[in-house]
Amino acid sequence: MTTPPSDDTVRRCLAALTDLLGPAGIVTDAEAQAPYLAEARGNAVSTPLAVLRPSTTEEVAAVVRLTAEAGIALVPQGGNTGLVGGALAGRGTVLLNLGRLNRIREVDALDHTMTVEAGVILATVQQAAHDVDLMFPLSLGAEGSCTIGGNLSTNAGGILTLRYGNARAQVLGLEVVLPDGRVWNGLRRLRKDNTGYDLKHLFLGAEGTLGVITAATLSLVPRPRQMETALVAVPDVTAALRLLKRLRQASGDAVSAFEIMPRFAIEGAARYLGEHNDPLSEPSPWYVLIELTAGTPGDALRDTVESALGEAMEAGEVTDATLAASGDQRQKLWRLREGLPEIGRKVGGALHHDVAVPVSRTPQFIERANAAVAALCPGARPYPFGHLGDGNIHYNIARPDTDDPADRDAFLAQGGAIMRAVHDVVLDLEGSISAEHGIGNKKREELARARSSLEIDMMARLKRLLDPRDLMNPGKILPQ
Amino acid sequence: MTTPPSDDTVRRCLAALTDLLGPAGIVTDAEAQAPYLAEARGNAVSTPLAVLRPSTTEEVAAVVRLTAEAGIALVPQGGNTGLVGGALAGRGTVLLNLGRLNRIREVDALDHTMTVEAGVILATVQQAAHDVDLMFPLSLGAEGSCTIGGNLSTNAGGILTLRYGNARAQVLGLEVVLPDGRVWNGLRRLRKDNTGYDLKHLFLGAEGTLGVITAATLSLVPRPRQMETALVAVPDVTAALRLLKRLRQASGDAVSAFEIMPRFAIEGAARYLGEHNDPLSEPSPWYVLIELTAGTPGDALRDTVESALGEAMEAGEVTDATLAASGDQRQKLWRLREGLPEIGRKVGGALHHDVAVPVSRTPQFIERANAAVAALCPGARPYPFGHLGDGNIHYNIARPDTDDPADRDAFLAQGGAIMRAVHDVVLDLEGSISAEHGIGNKKREELARARSSLEIDMMARLKRLLDPRDLMNPGKILPQ
Repeated sequence: MTTPPSDDTVRRCLAALTDLLGPAGIVTDAEAQAPYLAEARGNAVSTPLAVLRPSTTEEVAAVVRLTAEAGIALVPQGGNTGLVGGALAGRGTVLLNLGRLNRIREVDALDHTMTVEAGVILATVQQAAHDVDLMFPLSLGAEGSCTIGGNLSTNAGGILTLRYGNARAQVLGLEVVLPDGRVWNGLRRLRKDNTGYDLKHLFLGAEGTLGVITAATLSLVPRPRQMETALVAVPDVTAALRLLKRLRQASGDAVSAFEIMPRFAIEGAARYLGEHNDPLSEPSPWYVLIELTAGTPGDALRDTVESALGEAMEAGEVTDATLAASGDQRQKLWRLREGLPEIGRKVGGALHHDVAVPVSRTPQFIERANAAVAALCPGARPYPFGHLGDGNIHYNIARPDTDDPADRDAFLAQGGAIMRAVHDVVLDLEGSISAEHGIGNKKREELARARSSLEIDMMARLKRLLDPRDLMNPGKILPQ
Repeated sequence: MTTPPSDDTVRRCLAALTDLLGPAGIVTDAEAQAPYLAEARGNAVSTPLAVLRPSTTEEVAAVVRLTAEAGIALVPQGGNTGLVGGALAGRGTVLLNLGRLNRIREVDALDHTMTVEAGVILATVQQAAHDVDLMFPLSLGAEGSCTIGGNLSTNAGGILTLRYGNARAQVLGLEVVLPDGRVWNGLRRLRKDNTGYDLKHLFLGAEGTLGVITAATLSLVPRPRQMETALVAVPDVTAALRLLKRLRQASGDAVSAFEIMPRFAIEGAARYLGEHNDPLSEPSPWYVLIELTAGTPGDALRDTVESALGEAMEAGEVTDATLAASGDQRQKLWRLREGLPEIGRKVGGALHHDVAVPVSRTPQFIERANAAVAALCPGARPYPFGHLGDGNIHYNIARPDTDDPADRDAFLAQGGAIMRAVHDVVLDLEGSISAEHGIGNKKREELARARSSLEIDMMARLKRLLDPRDLMNPGKILPQ
């Protein structure tokens, strides 16, 4: 560790930053600062020296140079929607919000590419692709406020990963401000380029610890012409996996979303959100929300889905199903899935685990994790849901269903033990303790259990190579 | 540079290697060594201290430790089909052929994954996927003899990249022997894993300069149920691009190969290969060999292709077309494309450039490169062909068509100047001087022109971090 900068150094650096960025680029008012400081789930609040909002790559580079010179650490931030404290700025650091780098620099429909700055909202990227009759295939709950820079820095997942891969897979090129203030212009828009090491992968998913992504060249795909959305009741998770394989085969790999939900999604929506939304006549222990898309016009996809679901019912994989007949019905089905994180907030005491195992092991994972939780806290109510097609389960647990506050407190006091027990099962099944949310500062101590000492060593060496003074998002990802 | 090891050190190391690997693992007979020493295009021959053929990861690790201890450099090699001298072993080095690491460790059809060792032949990987009704979507000319380890180390491209991405995109996990002899077991089979830096991308495409890939977990896709192959005559490259966009839209992105060829493919096959294979009635300046696949059963794809080609003819994008009606016809159409590298060998003097530009700039690239070549060597005959859908053109040039050996020599003497002129056009169009073949030792000196000094600096720092003594495939990729 280097010595912290003196008060005088800090003062001079902040003055220089104010000169550089002007009033629009440095947020001083406490109320105006608030949205950048509080975490999405509200568990922690940043306490930086300043909130900076540069508007160009050159300004970002100048900020990095000035703070590096003063020995002040930087915390890059996109839409501040992360769930693991990755954009949390500790005392003595400067928060670097990229929201004003919000230009779409170029859209090339013939090349199926788009070059955008880091602060462009994901929904805006999607819309810009749609405007030229193409699609940017990344979609997640926070898409209305998260930024593409944050998506790439955390290698975001979401509901389309099964079909199109995660955020990393959508990137052709990057522009990055390195920890030493140099700007790497790697904004290539090539489909093939084997001229040496592929440097962009160092920064994708590095959560801003190796540099600041300021722009990216993204790959676009043709826009789907047909879409079918179904809610399907299944007896168990194994049946859901069989159904997935059947649908992938029957549709020619046209399944774009395959989200599993327990009965809790429907009962919880009624109880905690006041939403009475049960599209099927009989209760089922599990449901799958399925979306298929095809690039061809016509309505062949509906026939394919109907006939595959019919066969799945005969095979006992499916007990009931409904297909959305309109955009409204589609929204209503998706509302069940989208309500689940909200229920977690309303339940007044819930634990969250964003984990993945090999797809075929998801039934085993859920069964074993449920048993482990029951052993530690008998009344706790696990409601695992999420991206079954990727093996990515949001293994969330609601507090015991009692009116006694002591039960809730006992549950939350067990939080650490429960997390370790869930992660034990994940690791035993060769899974990941962070499927899509990243490590941030929240899962940092668990990382040493999840990755081998050789891997931690290689990561630490990469970090020291690119950021020897630990000035880029310190205290994130790597164990102390 | 470190001092070369003494003769005595070398002798002792070779004795230890012989003890370690036994007779099957060390090739001493000159005739038996030959296939590992001569380059695919036969331009250069390796002169290593020994040819090693370990059969397990542990043996590879032991080889790396023994040679590292002695200060002897290693050159990893797969099927020895590379075209840029990446597997060429210079004097004083040891050639490490991975061909005996040839086990398929696991196939999991439900997970759509397969774990294979580095020395498995690509065609064997394809077949193993086919055996469980799935597909491994990487296909290239050398697939009958190249190995998956080489494919991953060079981030191979080929004919399916347009649809499925390059070799890198098919990988979920890697096992790598690091330059210090430690084995990194990164054989995850997860679709989502955001636990820190994604280390596998360091080794994919690094041409063995950062470690030896010994095994990989690959991602598989459903097997296509319909396939249509067409040979289409187009007036120019711009028309071909318009056709590509039309077909992608009409088929729901089902175009899996889109290979452009000049008239030379047909005339050259007749003249240099004695193959009279002209499937269309009128000559055309350009042809595209197109393949579309769909995962759904039935014959809807044929209708789609026929109707899209009909519209393309009306729009002037296509002047004539033929669809393969049988497997034999399909082979005959592909033979035209596959014969092109062979013509290059028969022509008795040809220059090769494996380059890429943004897809939309391919017409401009070909026009400008042709002009540059004509200025340097008026009689030379460029025959650009290849993966138009990725912007990847094999810009090859046949010697002037004269009987005077002096013309041929004058042409070949201009080789360096012609290459630089072609690369100038590529770089001016923001392209890549090595789209899929890599850098090896052949394009090393050009790399400094293709990548910025910042990029070269970052690559060199990564190399020093992982291989500080430069013992892993020295003299490859990075400029001296």
